[in-house]
Amino acid sequence: MQTIFVMVKSELGRAYEVADAAVQSVDQVSEVHSISGQYDLLIKCYLADGADIGHFVTEKIQRLPGVRDTFTLIAFKAFS
Amino acid sequence: MQTIFVMVKSELGRAYEVADAAVQSVDQVSEVHSISGQYDLLIKCYLADGADIGHFVTEKIQRLPGVRDTFTLIAFKAFS
Amino acid sequence: MQTIFVMVKSELGRAYEVADAAVQSVDQVSEVHSISGQYDLLIKCYLADGADIGHFVTEKIQRLPGVRDTFTLIAFKAFS
Amino acid sequence: MQTIFVMVKSELGRAYEVADAAVQSVDQVSEVHSISGQYDLLIKCYLADGADIGHFVTEKIQRLPGVRDTFTLIAFKAFS
Amino acid sequence: MQTIFVMVKSELGRAYEVADAAVQSVDQVSEVHSISGQYDLLIKCYLADGADIGHFVTEKIQRLPGVRDTFTLIAFKAFS
Amino acid sequence: MQTIFVMVKSELGRAYEVADAAVQSVDQVSEVHSISGQYDLLIKCYLADGADIGHFVTEKIQRLPGVRDTFTLIAFKAFS
Amino acid sequence: MQTIFVMVKSELGRAYEVADAAVQSVDQVSEVHSISGQYDLLIKCYLADGADIGHFVTEKIQRLPGVRDTFTLIAFKAFS
Amino acid sequence: MQTIFVMVKSELGRAYEVADAAVQSVDQVSEVHSISGQYDLLIKCYLADGADIGHFVTEKIQRLPGVRDTFTLIAFKAFS
Repeated sequence: MQTIFVMVKSELGRAYEVADAAVQSVDQVSEVHSISGQYDLLIKCYLADGADIGHFVTEKIQRLPGVRDTFTLIAFKAFS
Repeated sequence: MQTIFVMVKSELGRAYEVADAAVQSVDQVSEVHSISGQYDLLIKCYLADGADIGHFVTEKIQRLPGVRDTFTLIAFKAFS
Repeated sequence: MQTIFVMVKSELGRAYEVADAAVQSVDQVSEVHSISGQYDLLIKCYLADGADIGHFVTEKIQRLPGVRDTFTLIAFKAFS
Repeated sequence: MQTIFVMVKSELGRAYEVADAAVQSVDQVSEVHSISGQYDLLIKCYLADGADIGHFVTEKIQRLPGVRDTFTLIAFKAFS
Repeated sequence: MQTIFVMVKSELGRAYEVADAAVQSVDQVSEVHSISGQYDLLIKCYLADGADIGHFVTEKIQRLPGVRDTFTLIAFKAFS
Repeated sequence: MQTIFVMVKSELGRAYEVADAAVQSVDQVSEVHSISGQYDLLIKCYLADGADIGHFVTEKIQRLPGVRDTFTLIAFKAFS
Repeated sequence: MQTIFVMVKSELGRAYEVADAAVQSVDQVSEVHSISGQYDLLIKCYLADGADIGHFVTEKIQRLPGVRDTFTLIAFKAFS
Repeated sequence: MQTIFVMVKSELGRAYEVADAAVQSVDQVSEVHSISGQYDLLIKCYLADGADIGHFVTEKIQRLPGVRDTFTLIAFKAFS
């Protein structure tokens, strides 16, 4: 399993609509938070090993209606 | 009371119009300054305790005509 | 409950040590990931309502041995 | 009167001490807030017309004990 | 005299056209360079003392055809 | 020979199409990678000595269909 | 094989020394360029599939003498 | 002739001293300004054609006493 965090900037005034759509329509999404700072949302996703992360972000997240910009963080390891 | 600062980038040539609209039409706005750097305006707002800041920025600031981008800073504490 | 994400840059070569210390010694920490980009770690924390976030980051996260820099994101709302 | 905002990153764990010192020892300081994001504090200052802002930031703000980095925003105009 | 530097991002493929227009049609412009990095152009301008810099950038630079984004640096003092 | 790296942000959902076009239609392009972070692609190009890099980026890269933003890094020297 | 790009900021005046050390002492390094912008070097590395990228950057790149800061980009796919 | 702009962050409180040293001791320096924003100084330099810019920044600018960080912009072309 690969874990990634995608920060999303939405079209103005549409952040909460994007958040709902991400939760409901993208299987790999596990958590969505609205956040302070430059981006509107922080989305945590789990991808299958070997999945092409660039393809996922491009095809699944960037194509959600209302998304304007993304910043992708790859998680290498979880500590617990 | 929660204090936040929203930096706003407006559509080109419309910063002063956005500033006037923010002052006149958004109750929570207490100060607006045009500024140097990457953003055009710095807006200080006071929100009621418990108000959802993400919702306020999305619904009230980002929907002012001429706003293009926002960056939200949360103030935790004021010193005096 | 307030949710925050703190991105941490550690002293060179000490990111994994900081990650372990955050998990083990800070009660409010719920998840730590090593990440790509400018920061080394992404730390998710839950704080009590009304807790001063600036004070928590300053006193608890920034004082972990090996921490060099932090960037704090406030989560306003979780979607599910 | 010139208005400027200085965002300050302090040495780790010393943000609140810097905030207190700014309020108490720098006459031009009118407000200090601890904030989310990359910097720890947002400081609003009023300088006399014609004062050299670079000199003020360098000599007064950057020399407060515990300051590590600054980002200066110049306010051109206040709207009200 | 006030000196400012405005970094300009132009619409794609139009940077050189914007550069020519800045030189020819804005009196306050003294130098224009195409540059590496995030912005396409660096423009040096001299404004009269007391001129509102925010108004100048908004009205004169941001309204040049093909300008997409600006970042304004204020020069406090020249050394020589 | 001059080496440059251009980071490209594409229109949403079009990064892989831009990558293919860059490889196939721009002679100076030697490598294209989809990447994490703020940009979608990292493109390595070799230009003839004396070629105007700003002109190349503006005319060749920014005009590829689907390109939205670029960030240019100039390589001064290769170590081996 | 995993491809990553690490941008490195070195201690002042030591960038070329770091570049030489990276080439000579880190097996996974395939190319090093000195670059314009915020960082001094761009280093391309090939890691074995399944290798922990965070661990590699922390243990191998950040511990090269003279390294001060790193920014890691993960390449998802190469186009050709 | 190659034109570059180097933005310099100095050690706290030492920006004006660095500015004076740059003007007086580095032949390639033609202008130095103290500036708003993230950096303290903007330095314009002219280098001979073919000079290694990375080497110049590393050896001449970064070694001025009091320099802490640099950001280099390459000017491709001047418009007039």
